[in-house]
Amino acid sequence: MAAIQGLLFDVFGTLVDWRRSISREVREILSPLGFSTNGEAFADAWRAAYQPALEEIRSGREPFRPLDEIHRRNLANVARDAGLGSLDDRTLGALTLAWHRLDAWPDVHQGLERLRTRYRLAPCSNGNLSLVSDLSRHNDWKWTMILGAEIAGDYKPKPHVYLASAAALGCRPEETIMVAAHSLDLRAAGALGMRTAFVARPREHGTGKPEKIDGMHFDWAVDSLTELADRLGCGE
Amino acid sequence: MAAIQGLLFDVFGTLVDWRRSISREVREILSPLGFSTNGEAFADAWRAAYQPALEEIRSGREPFRPLDEIHRRNLANVARDAGLGSLDDRTLGALTLAWHRLDAWPDVHQGLERLRTRYRLAPCSNGNLSLVSDLSRHNDWKWTMILGAEIAGDYKPKPHVYLASAAALGCRPEETIMVAAHSLDLRAAGALGMRTAFVARPREHGTGKPEKIDGMHFDWAVDSLTELADRLGCGE
Repeated sequence: MAAIQGLLFDVFGTLVDWRRSISREVREILSPLGFSTNGEAFADAWRAAYQPALEEIRSGREPFRPLDEIHRRNLANVARDAGLGSLDDRTLGALTLAWHRLDAWPDVHQGLERLRTRYRLAPCSNGNLSLVSDLSRHNDWKWTMILGAEIAGDYKPKPHVYLASAAALGCRPEETIMVAAHSLDLRAAGALGMRTAFVARPREHGTGKPEKIDGMHFDWAVDSLTELADRLGCGE
Repeated sequence: MAAIQGLLFDVFGTLVDWRRSISREVREILSPLGFSTNGEAFADAWRAAYQPALEEIRSGREPFRPLDEIHRRNLANVARDAGLGSLDDRTLGALTLAWHRLDAWPDVHQGLERLRTRYRLAPCSNGNLSLVSDLSRHNDWKWTMILGAEIAGDYKPKPHVYLASAAALGCRPEETIMVAAHSLDLRAAGALGMRTAFVARPREHGTGKPEKIDGMHFDWAVDSLTELADRLGCGE
């Protein structure tokens, strides 16, 4: 079995609690404008528009665009659907940047610090590089490099995103672990010969709606990145 | 005039003294094998094969390959031309990795440390991301992110490499300075609306063969990165 050299991490949901951060910023930014918005429902509607928009690009019907642009366009639609009318450019810009300020789950910082003592680490996110770089500064994450959709010009779960990221990290697929809270990511990476680590984030789809993983095999299944560090022998 | 947000750096020649490092490693690796090689001439011949190989990719005649692969293939040819016959795989691999261990010019570490107090910084090199990541660890450089040819799937001076790198850094071209010792890089970046900073590296083409910059305009022309930090108001 090939020795593990590097770990690639999904970001939204796996490392950060996007729902809590987005719903808080939605309330903070929209309340002073006189809107009384259910932040959590707004965050969920905004996030729900994400996969259909990416699918337009993955299918080749639309050219590659960075996630910031997609978030902004989806936001304009979600706001209209929520009865907020047309938000002005400044508000659209400020809310889009809320995705650059998401807070990490509490185990992430310590888990990454321990894992990086032994392995090369990189995010492999659908977020654009500047978004993930801002999140990394916000949460004090230290990476070997920042990777993901933007270096591949396509979106996960397209194989090229995982393969280009592992190659950039200097790892063969079998030397790489994909770490994610989503079966979609892990199924795609596993099919390419990567190792898989499932991190349970029970509230990722809302309370009481756990990720469906029935019948799936993962090389590791853990409840936190600190547990993953334990399992990979990266001491305290 | 747009405020500067980020700086992109050429690496080979601009930040590192590739000739000195490569010629030293050529001697160290080939001498025990019984070859008495002129390290500097070997380094120059190896480097001379670089642009023609990239041109095959830039022109579309060959698909994109990371620089490590190109270095290794060129090395095999250069060794044959130098009368060393067919080097074995282990020697080819060890010498190819010499490009991951190049030493920086003496002003670089301090210059980057001062510049990063005010600006986003990224390498924009034709080196693959894992190569530049290794060079960064070797020389203790701290970047906002690592960018360059591999994120664009093409080689400088093709415009997409500079544009994709500036975009990933979150900067419009006019908010970005391209920093290089080569007029090729600066002409290409300048044509895209980027600002340009020329760093003189008098020995880049060998002793007594300075870069030809007659008639060219640069926004800044300096002798070191510490001088560039002075000029951009990044204090000691």
